[in-house]
This record gives sequence, structure tokens and C-alpha cells, in this order.
Amino acid sequence: MRSTVEDPTDKNGRVRTIDWRDDHIVAIDQTKLPGELVELAIFSVEDLVDAIRRLAIRGAPALGAAGALGAAMAARDDPGHRDLALAGLRAARPTAVNLAWGVDRAAARLAEGPDAVLREALDVLEEDAVRNRRLAERGADWLAAQLQRPANVQTHCNAGALACVEWGTALGIVRALHERGRLGHVYVDETRPLLQGSRLTSWELTELGVDHTLVIDAAAATVLARGLANAVVVGADRITANGDVVNKIGTFPLALAAARAGVPFVVAAPESTIDPATESGLDVEIEVRDGREVLAIGGLPGTATLNYAFDVTPADLVTAIVTEDRLIRPALGERPA
Amino acid sequence: MRSTVEDPTDKNGRVRTIDWRDDHIVAIDQTKLPGELVELAIFSVEDLVDAIRRLAIRGAPALGAAGALGAAMAARDDPGHRDLALAGLRAARPTAVNLAWGVDRAAARLAEGPDAVLREALDVLEEDAVRNRRLAERGADWLAAQLQRPANVQTHCNAGALACVEWGTALGIVRALHERGRLGHVYVDETRPLLQGSRLTSWELTELGVDHTLVIDAAAATVLARGLANAVVVGADRITANGDVVNKIGTFPLALAAARAGVPFVVAAPESTIDPATESGLDVEIEVRDGREVLAIGGLPGTATLNYAFDVTPADLVTAIVTEDRLIRPALGERPA
Repeated sequence: MRSTVEDPTDKNGRVRTIDWRDDHIVAIDQTKLPGELVELAIFSVEDLVDAIRRLAIRGAPALGAAGALGAAMAARDDPGHRDLALAGLRAARPTAVNLAWGVDRAAARLAEGPDAVLREALDVLEEDAVRNRRLAERGADWLAAQLQRPANVQTHCNAGALACVEWGTALGIVRALHERGRLGHVYVDETRPLLQGSRLTSWELTELGVDHTLVIDAAAATVLARGLANAVVVGADRITANGDVVNKIGTFPLALAAARAGVPFVVAAPESTIDPATESGLDVEIEVRDGREVLAIGGLPGTATLNYAFDVTPADLVTAIVTEDRLIRPALGERPA
Repeated sequence: MRSTVEDPTDKNGRVRTIDWRDDHIVAIDQTKLPGELVELAIFSVEDLVDAIRRLAIRGAPALGAAGALGAAMAARDDPGHRDLALAGLRAARPTAVNLAWGVDRAAARLAEGPDAVLREALDVLEEDAVRNRRLAERGADWLAAQLQRPANVQTHCNAGALACVEWGTALGIVRALHERGRLGHVYVDETRPLLQGSRLTSWELTELGVDHTLVIDAAAATVLARGLANAVVVGADRITANGDVVNKIGTFPLALAAARAGVPFVVAAPESTIDPATESGLDVEIEVRDGREVLAIGGLPGTATLNYAFDVTPADLVTAIVTEDRLIRPALGERPA
């Protein structure tokens, strides 16, 4: 894979997590943060799949954009290779629904030729920031009304701009609260094993000038029990028809702790994360990743591991799901689909 | 501090986590495992306090032994230095009650001279293995009766021989089940930030030939929700009069997950861990450790942290507390004191 080491600001002064430039995909390499802010230049669907598998590109909305841009890239290939490439891209990670959604949305234009596919993919990117902004304002409105005081937010993993094209979902709500002067403090789970919290969320919040405190994942329940945080806001990789939320491993115990503390548990995700074809979280394939991610610190090589990448938070623990179009309350029996 | 690099097997062929040899304390250096099994030789109370603070010696029952042996060491000093040393030792770590208990028990013999204090301290060590064995058999009896099938145990941190003088508490129950052929599999939380699960518990279980799987702390709730483990067994650093359990950070969310899964949550600890003078977990000082323990992997230097070393599991989530003398069921309203 070729990659360029440069400031990922485009000609309009925007920083996008993932974008199209000339004839290829550019994306911030999320394995290099917070040490280095560098861009990958990706020229083939195979290299895109590799970047997704090793989490250089990650986050459900960003995977939707990657899927659409990958389809645009594949559209230039001969049909035999194209179909294989698209199937491989759709299946690069099994749990997040947005990747397949992005591929399918752009690939639906294949009959119109490669330029139409690319235009559709670029529409997905343009809509991302708009959708996230709308989602964030709705979530901030609702939380501000619920809490009646500054929000002290506990979050997990990274559902910020780095998980999207721009702005962010869960961190989008945090940013909207911050802009309004309604944000107190943010508590960030480090998010083992790959530390998206300490590496990515903490970096984003520092860039935004948001006061925050890093805790180990196991301490989040105590942050809530002690009243330090009065809301949990997280993203999602797939939301099933009944309101179950599939998200980064560690979200489910956080929801249990929020319920125990009587604190709202809010999920921020675009409509494209809702999967109406799947009834409940029990029906979702949970990706199990290489155990070396766990063993890399402190572990004895050869020790058996079970490295689930996601968990399922049952709908009854989900106070609210906020999308660009609506607010759904699964704990009160409302269904997303 | 002088330390010797040697096999910590004593002249009777026993391995003890902590012991007295000639005129000094010897202890397995738990910061070096699993890479190296080496012993520290400790010749002053100040060096003992240092070893305790940096967790070279850790685990509630082992801290009780360390407190008693430290009192025996201090008993040889002049009274002025002695009282200061004992006060410093008692306060070396604030949360675990056993340390002060061990100091006080041995120091109660000061009027009889240093040999009497040492004899008392050695009694504490001798009793440890006997107490743990009784505790383990009681816990194994109860779990075997409850489950009616092999126990698949989820545990957190290290409550094995390395947390005691010998045998172990939570892992003592696991060993007793293993001896009886009633153990299925053990799931070990890695236990961030200092990885007592991946470094110590996994090492102990490997030495014992017990099949086990290492998971990140955030995955334990999923191990329970998916029915992979049918019991949680952990140790404790302090148990208050009402049955609240203060233990390694991450125990409380594990108890929430066990309650959600309908799985028994069992706490294994000697009677000396019960603190009848403290009514509830809300009254216990929770040690906050240096944030560099959290930031050491993935963290941006200078990021604010909140590094609680322990959390409080409320009594209503504790199915059973097993000691050398009794089984208490806090979730049913039974009080330890």
C-alpha cells in the first residue's frame, strides 16, 4: 500500500477522515494516532479491505463511506473482478451494518457507469456531516432537557469525527453541548484492546479543547455510581429492529452500570446503522478478532483468548437512540423498525 | 532494596508467596511475573512499604501476612522508630483491611518482646493455608450443589496463591473444584491497568494445568450473557458489615453482569477481610493510584486520569461470601457483621 505522510486537510480547509482524491481514496491512518496524523492513499479495493481489517479505517459511519468509495473504485474494474471485489469488501468486517450499506448504495448505480457510482459515493460523504450535525443537535436538545444541568458524559470507544467522515455521532452530541456551554466534563474509557478511547477520543477532545478524563474500561461503572457522569453517550455498529445495540465490546456493561445509577444511556447513530432486516442482537454475527490484540500487553504468548470485538446491549437498557431523523426510546418499548 | 534471584521454594519444598527467612522477609516479586519467578529479600519496614506500594507484594491475605511480618521486623527496632514504622506500614495502602489487621495482630504481642511478635506473625502465615483450604472446600461444596454441572468460572484480578501465603481464595475454590473433577473452564479478566489477570492468574492456572481463556475486562459481561461462564468467583480487599464488597476495580460491573445473567456471584475471602467497624462500602476510602499506570499503553502523556484501584459491589449483588468459617448470602439480606 502506498501512503503519503501529509496534513490531511483538503483544498477547502476541511479535515475529512476519509475522502476521494483524483483517482483514489485517502484516509487518516487511525492506527498511527495519537502519535502521528498521517494519511493513507488507497488505490485498490484489496488495499481498502486490508485497511479496514486492521482498523486503519474504522467507525460505523466511516465504514459506510469506505464501502461507497470502494464501490466507486471497483466500478472501474472489469465485471468479473468487480463482483469479487465488492463481495470481499462487503464482508471485510461482519458486524457493522454500514459497510455493506455503503457498498450497496453506491453499487446500485453500476448500470449507469463508474461516474454515477462515484457521484453516489460522494453524496454519501456529503450527507455524513449534515446527518451528524442534525443528529447531534437533536441529542443535545434532548440531553439538555433531561438533565437540566451541565452534562457530564461518559463515553466508550470513539464515535467522533474519526469514526465518520466529519463531525461525529456520540462525540457530535458532546461537541454540540460544548458549543452551547452545556457540557461539564467527559469521561473516556480507554477501550481495550486497541485503545480507541485513549488514542482517538482523547486526541479529538484535546483538539476540540474539551476537558476530559481517561479511565480504564473497568472504572466506568464507578464513574457512574459515584455520580461523576450523569449521562452515557456512545455510538453503534448495528441497531436491530427491536432496539438492541451492537457496539464496541464494553458497551453492554456500561449500559448495565448506567441503568444501576439511573443515568440515561444514549446511542447516537445515523439511520444507516439501523438494520430492519435483523430482529435482535442475538441474530447478529459478533466478530472475534485475533487474540494477539489482547496478549500484546502482559499476556503469555500461546494463552487462549476470546477477543470479541463487539457486544450486544439489550433494548431495555437503551434509554434513547438518536438519529438524524428521530429519537427512539427502546427502554419504553419503542422499536427502531 | 536487596533482592535475590532464586527459586522461591523453601527447605520443605513449599512455595510461599511471602515468608520469613533467618532475619528478613522473602516474597515473590509480583511485578516480574510471568516473565521471571524471582524473590525479593526485604530487610526493613521501609523497603516492605515500598514493595507493597508498587504491588510487588499484593493481594489482601498476603498483605495481612506482610503486615504481621513487618511488625515482627519493626519489633527489633528502638520504640521511637518502631511506632513510626508501624504507622507507615498500616497506612501503606488504605483500602485493603488485611494489612492493618496483620500489623495489629502481631503488634499486640510487642510487650512480650520481638520473639513473641515473630511467633504471632508466623502463626498468621501457618493459618493462611489452612483457612484458605477450608474456605475453598466450602465454596466448592456450595457451587457444586448450586450448579449441578461442571463450574465454568469467570474471575477477575488475582485471588490465587500469589494473593495469599499459599493455596488462594477465589482460585482456591477453582483448585478445589478442579481436584474434584467438577471444573469446566475458567475465564480470566486481564485486569487493567496492572494486568494481574493476564500476568498472575493466567500464570497460576497454567502451572496448575487448568484450562482457561483470557479476555479483556470489558468482555466479561458478554462471557456471562452468552452462558460461557455459569459462576463468578472473586476475592475481596474489604467486606463491610452490611455485605458490600470492596475489590479490584472492575468487580462491580462483573457483579452487574452476573445479576443480569442470573449467575451466582461468589466472593471468597478470609474472616480477616471482614471489617465489622465499617458499615458500608460508601464509608471506605478508595485508593486512587498514579495515572501513569493507565497512560503507559496508548495514552497521551499529560492526559487527566482517574485511576481508582478498587470499586464497591453493593451487597444486593453478592450471592455468597465464603470464608473459612461460614457462607453468608448478602443478596438475601444476611449481614457479615
